[in-house]
Amino acid sequence: MKIILKPARNEWYGLVERPKMNSEDLSALVKSIFSEVKENGDGVLLKYTQQYDNVVLNTIKITQEELLAAQLNVKEELKQAIQLAANNIRTFHASQMVSFPKVETTKGVVCWQESRPIESIGLYIPGGTAPLFSTVLMLGIPAQIAGCKQIVLCTPPNKEGKIADEILYVAKLIGITEIYKVGGVQAIAAMTYGTESIPKVLKIFGPGNQYVTAAKQEAFQNGVAIDMPAGPSELMVVADETANPQFVASDLLSQAEHGTDSQVVCVANSIELIREIKSAISEQVEQLPRKNIALQALNNSKLIVMEAGEETLNFINEYAPEHLILSVCNEKEYLKGLRNAGSVFLGNYTPESAGDYASGTNHTLPTNGFSKAFSGVNMDAYVKKITFQKITKEGIQNIGKQIELMAEAEQLQAHKNAVTLRLNEKII
Amino acid sequence: MKIILKPARNEWYGLVERPKMNSEDLSALVKSIFSEVKENGDGVLLKYTQQYDNVVLNTIKITQEELLAAQLNVKEELKQAIQLAANNIRTFHASQMVSFPKVETTKGVVCWQESRPIESIGLYIPGGTAPLFSTVLMLGIPAQIAGCKQIVLCTPPNKEGKIADEILYVAKLIGITEIYKVGGVQAIAAMTYGTESIPKVLKIFGPGNQYVTAAKQEAFQNGVAIDMPAGPSELMVVADETANPQFVASDLLSQAEHGTDSQVVCVANSIELIREIKSAISEQVEQLPRKNIALQALNNSKLIVMEAGEETLNFINEYAPEHLILSVCNEKEYLKGLRNAGSVFLGNYTPESAGDYASGTNHTLPTNGFSKAFSGVNMDAYVKKITFQKITKEGIQNIGKQIELMAEAEQLQAHKNAVTLRLNEKII
Repeated sequence: MKIILKPARNEWYGLVERPKMNSEDLSALVKSIFSEVKENGDGVLLKYTQQYDNVVLNTIKITQEELLAAQLNVKEELKQAIQLAANNIRTFHASQMVSFPKVETTKGVVCWQESRPIESIGLYIPGGTAPLFSTVLMLGIPAQIAGCKQIVLCTPPNKEGKIADEILYVAKLIGITEIYKVGGVQAIAAMTYGTESIPKVLKIFGPGNQYVTAAKQEAFQNGVAIDMPAGPSELMVVADETANPQFVASDLLSQAEHGTDSQVVCVANSIELIREIKSAISEQVEQLPRKNIALQALNNSKLIVMEAGEETLNFINEYAPEHLILSVCNEKEYLKGLRNAGSVFLGNYTPESAGDYASGTNHTLPTNGFSKAFSGVNMDAYVKKITFQKITKEGIQNIGKQIELMAEAEQLQAHKNAVTLRLNEKII
Repeated sequence: MKIILKPARNEWYGLVERPKMNSEDLSALVKSIFSEVKENGDGVLLKYTQQYDNVVLNTIKITQEELLAAQLNVKEELKQAIQLAANNIRTFHASQMVSFPKVETTKGVVCWQESRPIESIGLYIPGGTAPLFSTVLMLGIPAQIAGCKQIVLCTPPNKEGKIADEILYVAKLIGITEIYKVGGVQAIAAMTYGTESIPKVLKIFGPGNQYVTAAKQEAFQNGVAIDMPAGPSELMVVADETANPQFVASDLLSQAEHGTDSQVVCVANSIELIREIKSAISEQVEQLPRKNIALQALNNSKLIVMEAGEETLNFINEYAPEHLILSVCNEKEYLKGLRNAGSVFLGNYTPESAGDYASGTNHTLPTNGFSKAFSGVNMDAYVKKITFQKITKEGIQNIGKQIELMAEAEQLQAHKNAVTLRLNEKII
């Protein structure tokens, strides 16, 4: 863990820069799998599942029997924990479904906006060592609230050809029944084009490795919407004398254990505090099953001593962290000046893992500095906002002349004529 | 103009399909211009401006003098028309800036969402025969409302090396001062990477031809956000016996005059009405300066006789039009069942051109069926929504156990530990 002492402004560029991802190299592979899936459908999915997931499947779709069996295999206390998380996620996301007022912009000219669900969406849930059922909650519950009619879930099978019970349990809990055992580029291609088994969707959500990320970009090129561009997960903690070094260390480690490419940054206003945090990290990391992953991630981590207040705020905004923990005495001041972040955790009792699982906010967030231009997944991601306007006979008299002038200045005579005919109706 | 009589459901696919765009072929050219601009900056912009816009420029940035001179060259009555449009656009877009409630999802766990402007954005305004100053209003005013700090505008110069007075007038009116004489792929590349003159931006907005569209896709691959994928403009009119055939014809023509690739569709519930509309079109088109463009677009247009109500509603939703005019007796019924559209115009006195210029809604809308998954430009496009959570010492006791269980089930021990330390604080 590198300690950086009061970096000068010209050193910031190096500190906020993320490691380069080499998405370019994958595009040929991705394009080739996409065109195979487009042409030959399910067969190609089975082929790549054998090749990449080392299992021969006969059918891709989860059966009703598998879905029901999974319900019995999840422990009751985990079910209850999931229920609490689901309730909180539902409550928070439902609160985002505000309706917009009708606005009379000029007398007789009424405009408004209404949301409609995106009708079919696809969720990609990565496989790997642990079943990431929390992502099913995070991506599925808002879809259910929005009223998306078709929710497709793709996730790679394990070597026994199975999907983790927890994933199936959560999917059923929130009403997802179209679940397919397919992962990687081939899963994204299947949801882009549709196959015999898997329906084409309008938007694809979900995290994944660099292959899945490149595949989602290819899907976007093919006219399928995606949640956001992806990159390795990140946490920045800003701490001052009111922070608890043990807590800060545990938060930094919870980010570091995600993967060797996790980005971990801690900014504090004294070298003493940074040293305390560092020593707490060294102690705590020893107890972790994923110690080796965490240590590698920590190798690239940054412990920075920086003046609290404006200087630190500027640094946060330059870095634009995915997750930001503020353990500071004057959090209101920080909130006022904060411009770029995915999700923010305030105070000593708000660990990142609360947002990862159960506070109610979404854990699908913009990494890699993308929080400068992208939001995390929220209800907006599941709907389109359609605009409406209704103009009365009097209303068109109030804005018609102006439209005629503007259309004429843009040399669009037919645009003008559509108004002129209406203005002159009484005369016709 | 082809009349299609009560098409069977299996004929719909052909009717809703848009002409294929060949974006693929352009990617090599786009990539090469992008890498030239990245490496050599302004010089490359000047080179391509000479090559594509046939003018040799010395400087790219509009001077204060040019900006002021333009103010004098716009007629007073057009200025007043623009002012009314600007006011309506401002009123409607400002009404979208709702704030979200703080939600206590569990006792002691408070979550909320706040919007922050995207700090730097780029607007692309196409050149061509007519100055499309209305697009400057549509893309610039929401940026101003959102509080985007830096608004860059790129637009190609004419053969005299000038930008239309109206574009400069509108830009100044809404506070845009960073205006650059550069168009095409090179303009999008400049805003993606930054050059000596033109700043790099976080998000690029604006319409354009297939080159600009391909360039925006390349920008997206490079981590710059874009407003939406693009395609030729479209209008669908749904008419019944309450519609005025002359008005419908004028609306269809106002779409057709946009370009030879414009998509024009009219659905009515009787062949008589369709014939009246067709005859009105034939009459009106003769008067248009852009008659030849309109006639070519009309060649691909569809006049469809279809049962009103559910059948037509299903067809609208399958087509997912950019613009939809509903001139029907039972518009409420249609609104209830409407799932996919960009912007909707209700009744006989709401021509599309009202929304193009002055009603207040945005005219940057999803074409090509993208309204199934994308919204038109609205305030969401200029902000990120950041989530916040604050948990009290009691709050973490209320959800901590559940987080521990879920983290453990996902085999993320450090995530669990960040909670355990806080739950056990009293004991430490």
